[in-house]
Amino acid sequence: MIRSIDWKSDYVRLIDQTRLPEEEVYIETNDAAVLAEAIRTLRVRGAPALGIAAAYGILLGVQPFRYASRDSFVEAFERTAALICDTRPTAINLFWAVDRLRNVLENSKEASAAVLFDQLEKDAVAIHQEDEQMCEAIGRHGATLVPDDALIITHCNTGALATGGRGTAQGVITTAFDQGKNIRVFADETRPLLQGARLTAWELQRHGVDVTLITDSMAAMIMRTCRINLVIVGADRIAANGDTANKVGTYSLAVNAKMHGVPFYVAAPTSTIDLCIATGDEILIEERPSSEISNGFGKQTAPSGIQIFNPAFDVTPSEFITAIITERGICYPPFSQSLAQNELQ
Amino acid sequence: MIRSIDWKSDYVRLIDQTRLPEEEVYIETNDAAVLAEAIRTLRVRGAPALGIAAAYGILLGVQPFRYASRDSFVEAFERTAALICDTRPTAINLFWAVDRLRNVLENSKEASAAVLFDQLEKDAVAIHQEDEQMCEAIGRHGATLVPDDALIITHCNTGALATGGRGTAQGVITTAFDQGKNIRVFADETRPLLQGARLTAWELQRHGVDVTLITDSMAAMIMRTCRINLVIVGADRIAANGDTANKVGTYSLAVNAKMHGVPFYVAAPTSTIDLCIATGDEILIEERPSSEISNGFGKQTAPSGIQIFNPAFDVTPSEFITAIITERGICYPPFSQSLAQNELQ
Repeated sequence: MIRSIDWKSDYVRLIDQTRLPEEEVYIETNDAAVLAEAIRTLRVRGAPALGIAAAYGILLGVQPFRYASRDSFVEAFERTAALICDTRPTAINLFWAVDRLRNVLENSKEASAAVLFDQLEKDAVAIHQEDEQMCEAIGRHGATLVPDDALIITHCNTGALATGGRGTAQGVITTAFDQGKNIRVFADETRPLLQGARLTAWELQRHGVDVTLITDSMAAMIMRTCRINLVIVGADRIAANGDTANKVGTYSLAVNAKMHGVPFYVAAPTSTIDLCIATGDEILIEERPSSEISNGFGKQTAPSGIQIFNPAFDVTPSEFITAIITERGICYPPFSQSLAQNELQ
Repeated sequence: MIRSIDWKSDYVRLIDQTRLPEEEVYIETNDAAVLAEAIRTLRVRGAPALGIAAAYGILLGVQPFRYASRDSFVEAFERTAALICDTRPTAINLFWAVDRLRNVLENSKEASAAVLFDQLEKDAVAIHQEDEQMCEAIGRHGATLVPDDALIITHCNTGALATGGRGTAQGVITTAFDQGKNIRVFADETRPLLQGARLTAWELQRHGVDVTLITDSMAAMIMRTCRINLVIVGADRIAANGDTANKVGTYSLAVNAKMHGVPFYVAAPTSTIDLCIATGDEILIEERPSSEISNGFGKQTAPSGIQIFNPAFDVTPSEFITAIITERGICYPPFSQSLAQNELQ
């Protein structure tokens, strides 16, 4: 399986996702500034992978001060933290990982730089391992819902490239495949940024899964003409009632799944569930630059000055969702009950 | 309004659709070979526009023999016919137009080249005018279904660029707009070939209609969050029961329209209706090259060797269609009855 990012004792190795699917190029660096630039330029992406990258970035930044004074070590930490959090100010996983490591400093007020470094390294690796285990657990729970000889439709990228492990929705697919099940996947290309074409198709192909790329608009006709067993997607945010915000196009897929009687599953870590949000109506949808649609891949494909609507996500109301798979198990409707119970486990 | 193609007494003027939306460039030629090459390279496209282009191409080919012998005139006709029909052998409108003009020769066995030329010119211009009138009639009938302050979703390109007039589905939109109705259109970009982004958005913008470009996958969320009044699309072929083959993505749109209670209209000339085909199941769906999806934007955006499914069309079953608008009027369900009656008018 692909490792999107790894800590190699004193340097970081990460796959350059901007070179995919044409080339499989790895960046190896012991320079926090290089890693920060890789985050800024989307060479590493995906919420969980970003948290891991931030933690390893901190290690790179403090490493030269490992045998210096505690003060200069802490200074280096904060300098690196600012550098990293500045790359993508809306990516909360960066802030979450940095804050978690900052706790190490605060909980060991007397420790030397060398001791702090060892503790930070342990914690950074733990962030990665926890994510990996979370993916394994989601995959294990989700795979029980995948029959043998399954035809599956998925959307966007939810695989190893986006996480520290085998992914969420895509992890369910590869787990079922690794269990020996016969699996065939239709991967939506996922306009505008084509994560499905560039990343999911590449990952599944590399994993040996039988994958066929389609445009987003073809999923409906495929549900009508083939016996699709399930649709599975990830989530960016899940409200207390189960309403799910995910990559734009997810809702269209959910409507079509319902109309064709195809089970529609969401796979995501419990950290995605926000019980403070009652319904999907409270989820703010980020609008992204119109150039992603008009000049998507280096060529102008829409008239100059045209109005463009480019929401990054859409909200799928819970009544379209058959089940939500987390690392703790499978939640069924009514989600307002099952998600709250899942949280308590 | 844009004229996709025009006969200018002794030469043809056509807009180069491959340069859109970046540049509005016209080709003017009195050389049938140049026109044939323009057809082959998709500088002119759209079934009705191709029929018109073929007729004008014949005129260009025989024009130099206008004052020659009848025999050399007829020879020039057949040479040009072969040249034109060879450009896109599956485009039936080319053959239909050439056959119609050939009838002129066969019905005037004694006429001189000069007389034949005048008759051919009259017929070629008639093909164009009939198409124009067909568009006007579809627009007039369809506009009665468009309320004031309408929010409309459309798919692919069905406008002036594809026809000799104002288009079919798009002609309904511009007719309602020209009647003074307040209209706002969401245009699907229409993957893989982006006819919606490149052509429809450009045409509607130029016509002064308030148009917003979206990816195909966004139509569903827009139906959920905005008060969409209707979806309107064209058709490539309509079966006797109303099942409609149209650009891939149409069916997904129809499913979403049904789920959201939005009327779904098809606008197409009666020539599109094939009463010999009982249902959509009998319509063969053309599969197109996978490179349209993997290298659509001038850059490789999918892994090498990936399996790709690229059907050009999908079939929307008649139960998803609110009404079918032809130049003869509006057909409502049950379509097996209303389409047959429409044919008899």
